[in-house]
Amino acid sequence: MATVKLVDESAASPRVKAIYDDIKATKKIDRVPNFWRGLAAHPEHLELVWSRAKAIMKPGALDLVVKEMLALAVSITNSCKYCINSHTAAAQKLGMTPEQHGELLAVVGLYNQLNKLADALQVEPDLLPKVE
Amino acid sequence: MATVKLVDESAASPRVKAIYDDIKATKKIDRVPNFWRGLAAHPEHLELVWSRAKAIMKPGALDLVVKEMLALAVSITNSCKYCINSHTAAAQKLGMTPEQHGELLAVVGLYNQLNKLADALQVEPDLLPKVE
Amino acid sequence: MATVKLVDESAASPRVKAIYDDIKATKKIDRVPNFWRGLAAHPEHLELVWSRAKAIMKPGALDLVVKEMLALAVSITNSCKYCINSHTAAAQKLGMTPEQHGELLAVVGLYNQLNKLADALQVEPDLLPKVE
Amino acid sequence: MATVKLVDESAASPRVKAIYDDIKATKKIDRVPNFWRGLAAHPEHLELVWSRAKAIMKPGALDLVVKEMLALAVSITNSCKYCINSHTAAAQKLGMTPEQHGELLAVVGLYNQLNKLADALQVEPDLLPKVE
Amino acid sequence: MATVKLVDESAASPRVKAIYDDIKATKKIDRVPNFWRGLAAHPEHLELVWSRAKAIMKPGALDLVVKEMLALAVSITNSCKYCINSHTAAAQKLGMTPEQHGELLAVVGLYNQLNKLADALQVEPDLLPKVE
Amino acid sequence: MATVKLVDESAASPRVKAIYDDIKATKKIDRVPNFWRGLAAHPEHLELVWSRAKAIMKPGALDLVVKEMLALAVSITNSCKYCINSHTAAAQKLGMTPEQHGELLAVVGLYNQLNKLADALQVEPDLLPKVE
Repeated sequence: MATVKLVDESAASPRVKAIYDDIKATKKIDRVPNFWRGLAAHPEHLELVWSRAKAIMKPGALDLVVKEMLALAVSITNSCKYCINSHTAAAQKLGMTPEQHGELLAVVGLYNQLNKLADALQVEPDLLPKVE
Repeated sequence: MATVKLVDESAASPRVKAIYDDIKATKKIDRVPNFWRGLAAHPEHLELVWSRAKAIMKPGALDLVVKEMLALAVSITNSCKYCINSHTAAAQKLGMTPEQHGELLAVVGLYNQLNKLADALQVEPDLLPKVE
Repeated sequence: MATVKLVDESAASPRVKAIYDDIKATKKIDRVPNFWRGLAAHPEHLELVWSRAKAIMKPGALDLVVKEMLALAVSITNSCKYCINSHTAAAQKLGMTPEQHGELLAVVGLYNQLNKLADALQVEPDLLPKVE
Repeated sequence: MATVKLVDESAASPRVKAIYDDIKATKKIDRVPNFWRGLAAHPEHLELVWSRAKAIMKPGALDLVVKEMLALAVSITNSCKYCINSHTAAAQKLGMTPEQHGELLAVVGLYNQLNKLADALQVEPDLLPKVE
Repeated sequence: MATVKLVDESAASPRVKAIYDDIKATKKIDRVPNFWRGLAAHPEHLELVWSRAKAIMKPGALDLVVKEMLALAVSITNSCKYCINSHTAAAQKLGMTPEQHGELLAVVGLYNQLNKLADALQVEPDLLPKVE
Repeated sequence: MATVKLVDESAASPRVKAIYDDIKATKKIDRVPNFWRGLAAHPEHLELVWSRAKAIMKPGALDLVVKEMLALAVSITNSCKYCINSHTAAAQKLGMTPEQHGELLAVVGLYNQLNKLADALQVEPDLLPKVE
């Protein structure tokens, strides 16, 4: 059960309604996902989060499907059930194939292992990045 | 200070030496990174980890640079200093541009925030993935 | 399904019963929450945990509602579903308003993002704390 | 060593310089912290992050010192060294006393323990929050 | 709902079927657990993961029940519901008593607390391990 | 640099001094580790933490070396540098061999990977534990 009252589209204030319309148009979906309906309990916060998410999740130097795969990798590493579900769906909608999904899972699993081994060994960094 | 004794290339047993050579050839590097030198304290484990890492980190349905960027997203989410350093360097070597790096950081930051907000709101999943 | 057998109030040993009574009196609640009923499978551990929790969660230099909000911030960051639920309820009972809840969510979301960006950038601390 | 080139105040573009000035004025500090100098490698991202952080970290329904203490609780739970350092300093500057610091540490430690015990027991939520 | 299509034993390809048979024989169970049925959506990954898990989870310098208890400690710390469930069951099957389970929970809870306090205090390591 | 002032043994109040003596006697060490010297900035908290740690970290249904190995598994999973260092040392002092250390690392690495894969697949628990 949600910890806040989800705001229905029919009950939204004009300010929230405008953001809901933008979410649906931007994401090409028919219904406002529960996440955004929960954030709408606090409209100012909804606006801050949505405007930034929209600015970041557009095609740029990285393709949108790559951005969704990065979001999925983060969500798996954080064990966020809602997010794993929605980013798996979103990446598939943008063209992630079953083979790509399988490879993503393999990479994400591998580095969750290797990250902890590196911490356990307490080895010093040795491949210095060239600074941009 | 490392929690195990790092195995120098000059002191490696033939079994470890063969893996070291494969690591350097596969990654096109001159020196065996500290991480693998630490794992070599337990040669059977080194072999299990390296053989799987090699099998996963080759070009496939996903490009190698995308795989490195996924590894970087996982490493940032896990706050693994050694790993952030080495995957930033590896992705740059494979062609990640400063603009792509900036967008990756923005996406990874955004979803570390949104993951926690979704957990805080305890909203139910609503975008069911089409199953493969 | 719980991984231990929850101990019902009616079936509790005198030692456990005394702790149950203290939990209900201290928290001003009618029923022993599932968490404590699960810990009661191991009475010595129940006693250690409850006595320390009671000593820490009393008004002091910080108000109790602030302590509950800190507990909620920790629980969200750890993605603990049971704990998010119970600390949201407890903070509301102690007077946390919807506006305060909204601001808490905004702060917790923000710093889950900024924490990871700071790790990704690997910048050195520069604001030394004055030591107490 | 940072994974991006930190942007010095003297070398900042007008767009970055304006944000730097706003950071210093808002936080009442003389020098731009390394975190923001690292983000400045990607000015659009710097702008998105700073504008939102500024909007959230102002006094509101919660006092600013409480917001800094929540930020510190999040940073400790995420083990972010840079962030623990800077939020400890910021909360002290805003008036957090040694006694309050000690109680904050006790609460944060306690719930990192209890969160994991609740997960380990897999008990169901039983204190439903009143929805706002 | 799973994010991949679970592969039924009756529908498994010969390659997957052979791994399923090995899983059941090795673990002395009648049915292939959902985790492995989900991995089977990508047979090459299933093979990599299973072969390594089998190599690691055999009696060696550590007893198998100790290895399962370590796996449970990791799973609790990661808050992985599926894993907490299955490793609790597996350790019990291998002989973990209720008293041992209670002590394991106490140790795991304690160090999730102390880990965060050590990070919060930012104290330097002082008990250098003797290197192997 | 520590975020609190470490309390030297020579400067400790009688209350803190008594705990310091108990720590050294219990752990059979000559010097009070930095962790406890940092907690001593808040004596009441020091007392709560130490008394519980002492009660839990004694031989019981589990050997002390197994408890230290569980503490190390937790500390690696949490990436706590100070704690990885001190629990590696403590487990070695109690008899953990290099072979056991290697197997512990392999198990901890493996389940950090498998935990995340289980989360990513979102499979339902299927091995119900027998309840104690």
